[in-house]
Amino acid sequence: KNMTSKIIIEESYKRISSYIHKTPILTSETFNNHFNSKLFFKCENFQKSGSFKIRGAINSILQLSQKELDRGVITTSSGNHGAALSLAGKIKNTKVIVIMPENTSITKIKNVQRYGGEIIFCDSTFEARQGMLESINKKKKMSYISPFDNYNVIAGQGTAALELIESIPNLDAIIAPISGGGLLSGTILASKQLNPNIKIYGAEPINADDAYQSIKAGKIIKTINSDTIADGLRAQIGELTFPIINENINKIITVSESAIVECMKIVWQRLKIIIEPSCSVVLGALIKNKDEFKNKKVGLILSGGNVDLDNLPWLN
Amino acid sequence: KNMTSKIIIEESYKRISSYIHKTPILTSETFNNHFNSKLFFKCENFQKSGSFKIRGAINSILQLSQKELDRGVITTSSGNHGAALSLAGKIKNTKVIVIMPENTSITKIKNVQRYGGEIIFCDSTFEARQGMLESINKKKKMSYISPFDNYNVIAGQGTAALELIESIPNLDAIIAPISGGGLLSGTILASKQLNPNIKIYGAEPINADDAYQSIKAGKIIKTINSDTIADGLRAQIGELTFPIINENINKIITVSESAIVECMKIVWQRLKIIIEPSCSVVLGALIKNKDEFKNKKVGLILSGGNVDLDNLPWLN
Repeated sequence: KNMTSKIIIEESYKRISSYIHKTPILTSETFNNHFNSKLFFKCENFQKSGSFKIRGAINSILQLSQKELDRGVITTSSGNHGAALSLAGKIKNTKVIVIMPENTSITKIKNVQRYGGEIIFCDSTFEARQGMLESINKKKKMSYISPFDNYNVIAGQGTAALELIESIPNLDAIIAPISGGGLLSGTILASKQLNPNIKIYGAEPINADDAYQSIKAGKIIKTINSDTIADGLRAQIGELTFPIINENINKIITVSESAIVECMKIVWQRLKIIIEPSCSVVLGALIKNKDEFKNKKVGLILSGGNVDLDNLPWLN
Repeated sequence: KNMTSKIIIEESYKRISSYIHKTPILTSETFNNHFNSKLFFKCENFQKSGSFKIRGAINSILQLSQKELDRGVITTSSGNHGAALSLAGKIKNTKVIVIMPENTSITKIKNVQRYGGEIIFCDSTFEARQGMLESINKKKKMSYISPFDNYNVIAGQGTAALELIESIPNLDAIIAPISGGGLLSGTILASKQLNPNIKIYGAEPINADDAYQSIKAGKIIKTINSDTIADGLRAQIGELTFPIINENINKIITVSESAIVECMKIVWQRLKIIIEPSCSVVLGALIKNKDEFKNKKVGLILSGGNVDLDNLPWLN
């Protein structure tokens, strides 16, 4: 297909590998015995900037011309992509502006500021963010780096699955979270190239199930509500990511809020690692469809670990 | 020396290595830049049973005769050693009794029960525990496995440092927490054998500084109070561990309660791993004496990750 040929995961990996961590893959006998599966946790919570997002951000920035670098880059994501883009900009010495709603949490603001990103606040509506983006760019002509609807971002995110599959080549399945779809579509493209037998699953909160609805309908369905604890999974599936996912996904599995929180706590307790609710959703998906994964080798992409330690969901 | 010749770390490592995890060693650019040191975190929080204690427990149990295994083992530690001994007993199919004060936290009770240890409750005084131990053993003649005052335990604990030094041979220093002294004396013996140039430091809460007092006095000083958040570090230094530590330790560094909690949170936030306050004390020791560790390669033994996630110290 035309769209996938534009995106070459292995080439991206060569481009970015000196800028990122090759993150570890953890296993747990306790989990394996409990679920009757062999689980491989790809720990992007240990990635630079605290999530996989640096892969796509640096892959995009490394492909800008010097003229584009001089003008800087801009995004509207206040979450992990905003922080990762700030770090990528710092690495390549280019200015980064992150447009954020005024009601953004202090943790997210700090994550962007830590890496030197400049924050511009606006109203919390989608229209206000887009309006601000256009008004800034009319003058400054910065490169807009979407958190997911950008082939260089998609290819960068796919390098997490590339590392996973190169380490564990005979996986039966991979489960990745789905929000805008950058990570999931990149995962699909990596597995198509390296081992097309691997079944790819998306994990999504029931409360933000636009990808599930869209795959079911065969076209992008915009949902109104996305009130989920998994704050990284509130975006709508993208124009570029939807066709890749629609054509290749095995299944989208939706997960309840209580299961997301419970799985987050289980991973903290048993694997002794900090993950955010936006990735505990993958364990929730496995548990919900556990018969489907029985006796299978399953890769689970733990996408990030940026959590406000003063505000833990099971203590609320 | 006679006492050290009894203890052979490398032999112990061969004995136990198929029963334990070779735990990862994490590094952090953020930390290295911040402290102007190269820090190597030995992650025993990822160890089986959630702490390094399984090393000494399984090393002890593997050296029991079949007759001794038939009678079972007993200990008075309700913390990580109690859980680890229960797991080691399960592996070798021998009965484990853990004598616990009635006021033990539910988390510690569950950790022992998870691995099938039998709990016998008694009053919370030292005398009551010893009395219970003696009264049970008068009849049952089980093997008493001290959490630290046992050469097989000490040698087992030393295998964590063995793994660390074999991976990073040119370390300048290692910091390990000190409670009864099993881990610290094992660390000393391992480094003496593998690289005697490594300086060994003990990290201890100010509020439970009996090791600091004892090293200063050149003899075991029993302190009355040990009211510290680092619940794994409340024991007094042992009869067997004291001489090894006294003869070889570079320094014991004492750490305040607030620094212990702050360092725990910093490690969770930046390394994205769960550690307990009983090991965040090693980062506290590094920070307190940071000039001493400047431009040095420092190994920090993160001893365990058994934390009650419903009761985090920075939220109290």
